[in-house]
Amino acid sequence: MDRPGPLFERAAILGVGLIGGSLALALKERAVAGSVNGYDSDTDNLLEARELGAVDEAFGCAGDAARGADLVVVATPVGYTGAVLREAAPSLSPHALVTDVGSTKAAVVASAQSLVPGGRFVGGHPMAGSEKGGVAAASPYLFENAYYLLTPTGETDPDALAAAQGLVRAVGARAVVLDPFEHDQLVALISHLPHLVAAALVNTAGASHRAGRALPLAAGGFRDTTRIASGPPAVWRDIFLSNRQALAAALGMFRDQLDRLERAVLEADAGTVVELLTRARTTRESLPEHGRDYLPVQYEVLVTVPDRPGSIAALTGILSRAGLNITDIEILRVREDSGGTMRLGFESAGAQSAALAVLEQHGMASRKARNGG
Amino acid sequence: MDRPGPLFERAAILGVGLIGGSLALALKERAVAGSVNGYDSDTDNLLEARELGAVDEAFGCAGDAARGADLVVVATPVGYTGAVLREAAPSLSPHALVTDVGSTKAAVVASAQSLVPGGRFVGGHPMAGSEKGGVAAASPYLFENAYYLLTPTGETDPDALAAAQGLVRAVGARAVVLDPFEHDQLVALISHLPHLVAAALVNTAGASHRAGRALPLAAGGFRDTTRIASGPPAVWRDIFLSNRQALAAALGMFRDQLDRLERAVLEADAGTVVELLTRARTTRESLPEHGRDYLPVQYEVLVTVPDRPGSIAALTGILSRAGLNITDIEILRVREDSGGTMRLGFESAGAQSAALAVLEQHGMASRKARNGG
Repeated sequence: MDRPGPLFERAAILGVGLIGGSLALALKERAVAGSVNGYDSDTDNLLEARELGAVDEAFGCAGDAARGADLVVVATPVGYTGAVLREAAPSLSPHALVTDVGSTKAAVVASAQSLVPGGRFVGGHPMAGSEKGGVAAASPYLFENAYYLLTPTGETDPDALAAAQGLVRAVGARAVVLDPFEHDQLVALISHLPHLVAAALVNTAGASHRAGRALPLAAGGFRDTTRIASGPPAVWRDIFLSNRQALAAALGMFRDQLDRLERAVLEADAGTVVELLTRARTTRESLPEHGRDYLPVQYEVLVTVPDRPGSIAALTGILSRAGLNITDIEILRVREDSGGTMRLGFESAGAQSAALAVLEQHGMASRKARNGG
Repeated sequence: MDRPGPLFERAAILGVGLIGGSLALALKERAVAGSVNGYDSDTDNLLEARELGAVDEAFGCAGDAARGADLVVVATPVGYTGAVLREAAPSLSPHALVTDVGSTKAAVVASAQSLVPGGRFVGGHPMAGSEKGGVAAASPYLFENAYYLLTPTGETDPDALAAAQGLVRAVGARAVVLDPFEHDQLVALISHLPHLVAAALVNTAGASHRAGRALPLAAGGFRDTTRIASGPPAVWRDIFLSNRQALAAALGMFRDQLDRLERAVLEADAGTVVELLTRARTTRESLPEHGRDYLPVQYEVLVTVPDRPGSIAALTGILSRAGLNITDIEILRVREDSGGTMRLGFESAGAQSAALAVLEQHGMASRKARNGG
């Protein structure tokens, strides 16, 4: 059978951390690129990327890595994108697609367009795994089913945009095309503002004279709400500073909402409190669960299991022996710590019913959950 | 072999929702009470509780349910605790331990102490499952390893406190004794403030003219941070209003922290931004993972799996057939949607090594993660 050639002859990944390393692994695993050059300012990380097989050749300078490549991806933290691109610019092939993976776009796109001639730069932002660093955590599956935002402008070469869309599809992600300024406003609302607020929440509890007694008791709600505050400070500093106009606007809107809720609580205005909380609940519940609205419907089963070793293996073993595929698994945070009930996903109503039957046979209390992803 | 009698002859659970129903199930499953009376203002829920075997006898009025019981638990939403207790008060046995499960304590304890003579009321707050309602979601394992706060005062009968501590231990939870006012300040910081902030965050995104484009893209960070905003509005209205002094103080502290971060971002003061984010990260990472600091050390393995049906069953099947107990399982949110890498927990370093070996035999990429819970 004829096999089509790779989409790109040679890719250069400039910055092989979690995102760059995962992209390199995906390009190789899916044969999207013939070969992959890697560059990283952190030599240990670069060598680890080569050891892990993410890159074929490792380069100590960005220009050498980019030379001859028809795909160049700048995958450094957003604060370094301009500098790395400036270093690579003189070596860029005139037909290369050049893109980045930064979390903010307007400033980066403007400066990149002046460095990459012919409208061959297309801003990119894969919404995946921004919280952890280092190639050691990289995975070729990082982008599967993830949103991957692309931000062309009026100057962008349509062929470059098409090539970028091809790249996104080839690594298993879903392309969404946005204007760079709109992009920055959207991510300020749904990513940067929540991050800043989570950090302020943690610092509020941490600065209190009650911190020593309060923090050990912090349960599911606090943990969920502040999880992103563990993100790397230097990465988020760059994101905040490069998007500070949109972030300031989002903060202004947030203060309005906070004021309304606070006023209603202090005035014991029960009706307004319920109205505002109901609005939040309705909006929150309208979000597709796990962002997987575009995936097939799932048929779910809830199983009660004691919080004891062996429960999970027993459960999955029973289903596995019955030939039933578990497509999703989750320990529900019913109790605020963990444990208690597990949610299992199946592909079809038939598999769901079969699972219920086999679990009942084994004396495990289970029931159908809502259908739908 | 002699079997000790139950801790309580007859328990009365006034309000059999998630918490009351789970407590009833735990009392029966663990033989902590000889029999369980149930009362609920929602007749359907009450009948469901009897069908599920959570209560032995169902009563249409709180006084009848409480009569003759040596343990009376008011498990209504916090706004109704006073009214239900007032209804039950004339029927209370003079030696009964009376307790509640409300999320705020100072006001409830003051009013309950005037209704229950002899210092037999002990305020209680199990930190488990407050977000979902209805006995259908109840589980006898809800309290296992959960913190259960008890708030005696100078008026509390020491025997009643000891009985309450016995109850907490008997349902598998961990008792923490606090002053009611201190309790309210702690939960304002680690529970009520995060909830109010999460609601304001959702309403900020929802009220924006960009909501239609922004919300479908909302990924892991936004989802985590706003998960609690799905809580039942009426429950949280009562919690906010009954704890508004402590909540207002916590909000004041939060605004200070928000101002500091915002100012540093707007002034592009990179050093201060990093300092504040680092402080948040350090505090956040000092929280015991899953609140399970008091559980045995876990030995963890990370496995890369494609986001495809069957991956999980294959993985757990392999381990289960090798006789290895999985004590914890989690799909890591490496990609912001889900999937990619799974984290598995094992009880011992030996099981961890055996798991790595058997996974390698089956060609599954896995590695050791940090030890410790």
